[in-house]
Amino acid sequence: MKKIGVLTSGGDAPGMNATLRAVVKAGTYHNLEVIGIEAGYIGLLEGRYRNLDILDVEEIVSYGGTIIKTGRTKEFQREEGFNKALDNIKNLELDGLVVIGGNGSMKGAQKLSEAGIKVMGVPGTIDNDITGTDYAIGFDTACNIVTETVDRILDTATALVGSTPRVFVIEVMGRHSGEIAMTSTLAGSVDALLIPEQEVDYDQISANLKRKFELGKNYGIILMAEGVGKVDEISRELEMRLGFKVRETLLGHQQRGGRPTAFDRVLGSKLGAEAVNQLVKGESSKMVGVRNNVVKAVELKVVNSDKKKFNTKNYELTKMLCY
Amino acid sequence: MKKIGVLTSGGDAPGMNATLRAVVKAGTYHNLEVIGIEAGYIGLLEGRYRNLDILDVEEIVSYGGTIIKTGRTKEFQREEGFNKALDNIKNLELDGLVVIGGNGSMKGAQKLSEAGIKVMGVPGTIDNDITGTDYAIGFDTACNIVTETVDRILDTATALVGSTPRVFVIEVMGRHSGEIAMTSTLAGSVDALLIPEQEVDYDQISANLKRKFELGKNYGIILMAEGVGKVDEISRELEMRLGFKVRETLLGHQQRGGRPTAFDRVLGSKLGAEAVNQLVKGESSKMVGVRNNVVKAVELKVVNSDKKKFNTKNYELTKMLCY
Amino acid sequence: MKKIGVLTSGGDAPGMNATLRAVVKAGTYHNLEVIGIEAGYIGLLEGRYRNLDILDVEEIVSYGGTIIKTGRTKEFQREEGFNKALDNIKNLELDGLVVIGGNGSMKGAQKLSEAGIKVMGVPGTIDNDITGTDYAIGFDTACNIVTETVDRILDTATALVGSTPRVFVIEVMGRHSGEIAMTSTLAGSVDALLIPEQEVDYDQISANLKRKFELGKNYGIILMAEGVGKVDEISRELEMRLGFKVRETLLGHQQRGGRPTAFDRVLGSKLGAEAVNQLVKGESSKMVGVRNNVVKAVELKVVNSDKKKFNTKNYELTKMLCY
Amino acid sequence: MKKIGVLTSGGDAPGMNATLRAVVKAGTYHNLEVIGIEAGYIGLLEGRYRNLDILDVEEIVSYGGTIIKTGRTKEFQREEGFNKALDNIKNLELDGLVVIGGNGSMKGAQKLSEAGIKVMGVPGTIDNDITGTDYAIGFDTACNIVTETVDRILDTATALVGSTPRVFVIEVMGRHSGEIAMTSTLAGSVDALLIPEQEVDYDQISANLKRKFELGKNYGIILMAEGVGKVDEISRELEMRLGFKVRETLLGHQQRGGRPTAFDRVLGSKLGAEAVNQLVKGESSKMVGVRNNVVKAVELKVVNSDKKKFNTKNYELTKMLCY
Repeated sequence: MKKIGVLTSGGDAPGMNATLRAVVKAGTYHNLEVIGIEAGYIGLLEGRYRNLDILDVEEIVSYGGTIIKTGRTKEFQREEGFNKALDNIKNLELDGLVVIGGNGSMKGAQKLSEAGIKVMGVPGTIDNDITGTDYAIGFDTACNIVTETVDRILDTATALVGSTPRVFVIEVMGRHSGEIAMTSTLAGSVDALLIPEQEVDYDQISANLKRKFELGKNYGIILMAEGVGKVDEISRELEMRLGFKVRETLLGHQQRGGRPTAFDRVLGSKLGAEAVNQLVKGESSKMVGVRNNVVKAVELKVVNSDKKKFNTKNYELTKMLCY
Repeated sequence: MKKIGVLTSGGDAPGMNATLRAVVKAGTYHNLEVIGIEAGYIGLLEGRYRNLDILDVEEIVSYGGTIIKTGRTKEFQREEGFNKALDNIKNLELDGLVVIGGNGSMKGAQKLSEAGIKVMGVPGTIDNDITGTDYAIGFDTACNIVTETVDRILDTATALVGSTPRVFVIEVMGRHSGEIAMTSTLAGSVDALLIPEQEVDYDQISANLKRKFELGKNYGIILMAEGVGKVDEISRELEMRLGFKVRETLLGHQQRGGRPTAFDRVLGSKLGAEAVNQLVKGESSKMVGVRNNVVKAVELKVVNSDKKKFNTKNYELTKMLCY
Repeated sequence: MKKIGVLTSGGDAPGMNATLRAVVKAGTYHNLEVIGIEAGYIGLLEGRYRNLDILDVEEIVSYGGTIIKTGRTKEFQREEGFNKALDNIKNLELDGLVVIGGNGSMKGAQKLSEAGIKVMGVPGTIDNDITGTDYAIGFDTACNIVTETVDRILDTATALVGSTPRVFVIEVMGRHSGEIAMTSTLAGSVDALLIPEQEVDYDQISANLKRKFELGKNYGIILMAEGVGKVDEISRELEMRLGFKVRETLLGHQQRGGRPTAFDRVLGSKLGAEAVNQLVKGESSKMVGVRNNVVKAVELKVVNSDKKKFNTKNYELTKMLCY
Repeated sequence: MKKIGVLTSGGDAPGMNATLRAVVKAGTYHNLEVIGIEAGYIGLLEGRYRNLDILDVEEIVSYGGTIIKTGRTKEFQREEGFNKALDNIKNLELDGLVVIGGNGSMKGAQKLSEAGIKVMGVPGTIDNDITGTDYAIGFDTACNIVTETVDRILDTATALVGSTPRVFVIEVMGRHSGEIAMTSTLAGSVDALLIPEQEVDYDQISANLKRKFELGKNYGIILMAEGVGKVDEISRELEMRLGFKVRETLLGHQQRGGRPTAFDRVLGSKLGAEAVNQLVKGESSKMVGVRNNVVKAVELKVVNSDKKKFNTKNYELTKMLCY
């Protein structure tokens, strides 16, 4: 093994640069040349790449985004595009490829793998919805951003006394997953959680808020995952039941940006290095993840066929804390 | 002068606690008893108050919100309510009153003043829309929160390569004022600014973005003040002209929360102390503000009759930076 | 079981308030009265305590420190003091006690346990040096503070060009443990790590830095755990070998403060709730921890007799990243 | 005027990149070519430079450091070096030069000016010790970093109960100036301030702390500017008087790094744009600053001959707040 490629694909996630640093450092340690392919599978198709050596990654660990860009393309899924990608991998003489990204990216990685390329996946997505790893890179940073938002809203919620209680609804990311909203509920002063994994019961939420108002609390903070709907629709439902206006926040794409947390950088460092180690050991067609605090590789087949299990214990805990 | 009251009124703003600290410390320095009236004019009406001594304020300077709460009430504006407030001021034997708040609060302060109460106003509102001061307490913190959001969105904006450029629209607070949006545009990587003080020209914004896309930039970040409309309406207008989907962020009430910046705490310290100094000197019916970097008191009449002048120079600068 | 006590003891750690919230919420869920004992074992000795109900903990999750204070006292270790503590537990009619703290606190918990008190420990210390848990509450926050410091120093390190390279040495906390320094090295742009678990080789560190200078890097950032010495001594050793002045940072007690991270709050929430659950189930004389991402209880005897194992894998990874 | 140069010199300061953005955007607005000279006067001497166009600065406003590096060199002060610099300015056909930096940099700017070069200075230094401007770029960010440190130390100071009070001494930057320490004292929970502009009276500081301990406060936080000595020396003096150990923090170079605050970015934007405007208007040999909230240009002669006046009013306010 002399030369490996690395790409970041799909939605960007904070910590991808920490992962790149580890891939390059580990590659150098194993005397490999490391090629950074730009804009995900787009770069594979179009032959956009550059050498990455130690000095290229020496200062990037704190950056959001990804220095080799990420991208989305449908062309890669078509035969012609896919074959172009294979050709470029051959022309580049890559002995292995590290693919950093989310669910879609892992599917692409498996396809390349089935075409004979030595591929190792690394889970990077704020949604944390990938089977085979307890944590995906970027998730912790996103949760901290949401948590900070809840903290700030709590400041104003507790400061202002009005004739009616004030209720705030915050829409957070996660696509089909409620992981960000659920973990941020464990971390924040939150009174209700709405996630796609659980049926939404507006009546119950309103009743719980009203019970709290009677106890003397004069505000409520609600976290909702984008998977359950739009913040304005949910707010209307609650207003109907509460009888007064609720305030909305739509956090948006800032959840994908910002300085990654120490946790995401450490995770990226471990997984990036392990991905290279696995390729060097001759492994392929796997994704490195962290399971039960241990870094290990899982078959991409498993990653791509199983849906991540919902954490019922955490959900129960949110109910206790929201009560 | 033996005893003064202090209250925070209207929308809370980060730095109000720093102001309270200064009022209490300056009061103590002048051998005054300081009474904290709770929930703004509500506390005056209902006789809700407590003593504030040095130890009560020794640790509050970093807190968001306000330890004596703020509030909004219409009752105070009616004769009966207003008279109750006057009675309570007399019963409390207050020789002076410091009112920390925004435009509405300064109007209430003037009314009390006209009824013979020695009142000194302090401008506290993130909107920074008060005549008589270059900066209101809380504004700098709000701008930093918006700026951080723009930074984070920039991370993902620059990281992801797609078939179309990505455009992000961020709605920020300010009521009828565009100050937060305008100052945050000077501070951030922003491509267009929409504020109520200027006519909104969607065609020109779209044309400018397209020009930038042709230069090679593949994203755009737009800041809009709530005074120009709702983020979803503005986004639809832009989508029509750009031909692709734009992403929305509605920052919401988090702009009022969080640890105040050093600037807002220093401002609150200066104005809070000066408010007491002015009362001790026998001044009344004024608001202390910072003009041209100098702390001075302005007649509440002037504060409440003049509209804050729009900063044309700053607006011209945003156009240069957005270009 | 009708009534439990909770205390925070030893060095404070960010996330202790999140833990308290969970203890009170879980206690309420199980219909228990929860008594907050103040200032750790001092409060047990002196009978200082107060009731904690849901509204007392509704807004504390974001606070640093601990609302019931923590403390250190030698009196508790003496027979007389210890007996007073036992008496107070009896007088308070506590059916169980949750002790949140570090190694010293767990020893105290075991002693109470041996005297017949139902005790459940929760690991809270930034040092992360407690056996029986992969993570102690507060550690993640401390690592993020150190990481932010490294990021900031990197900014100036890379900005300034001088005639000699610039080397920065940062002393971080951890007592006898190098965990904070080691994890922050995985997370940051660090060139050398000095920890008490490994022999310090100044010659090798200097040689590695010189090699990097020759590659074109003109600065170096070094993390040292307080367990290896004082930052000024270590700096002198390095200056002798490098031939130029190095810059020092002594981070100090700020590593124990600040808004806890989402991770520490989630950890505190899980462990706090589980501690109550365990007591309710009749368990005692244990510490709840998180092992391999699963919350479980370990015998206090084991916690207090075994030294936490050094993570050799992480250390190897730091060497790869620092190279 | 067709072509201007820009350089950042001396100690780097957060906000320098915002200033560069504004210089390039304003230059482009005036149809000027903008040349970024690298590493301050070093780049002038060695002819290291590169073109800067709009896309080069579109994303830099949030970065710490400076993308064209800064530097210090004694060669520029010698005749031979200075003449090389003049030659390079001629060879580059620069019609004007913007110099961003601190006191030393302004002296160099004046020298170039006296040799016939059209130069405009911009004050950038965290120390805020430059005559002719109320605020230098970078100062606000440094004060926020110090303030955050004080906040964190307050968390642990208030959390831990011990047999003796806990006193924390924090050494901050500022060279011969106490501005950072003084402003951060206005912003934080600080009990004593030591700055070079005022005589240090250890006895009085200790007496004030003891008075506060008697009031019931069991900790103290002290800010000292590096201009008064080393944190360990000052700590020994205090320990002698207090009779117990004090804790030390040496903040170090992190005060120069990190994401610049909105204030510093806005200031950099205004001053950078105005520097270009002034050059275009034919002005030279001046420094643009902000005085009384108005941007204006001051003669470099004045900047370099007068010492910045100490703000006595702010100092008096610190005494009131520390009491």
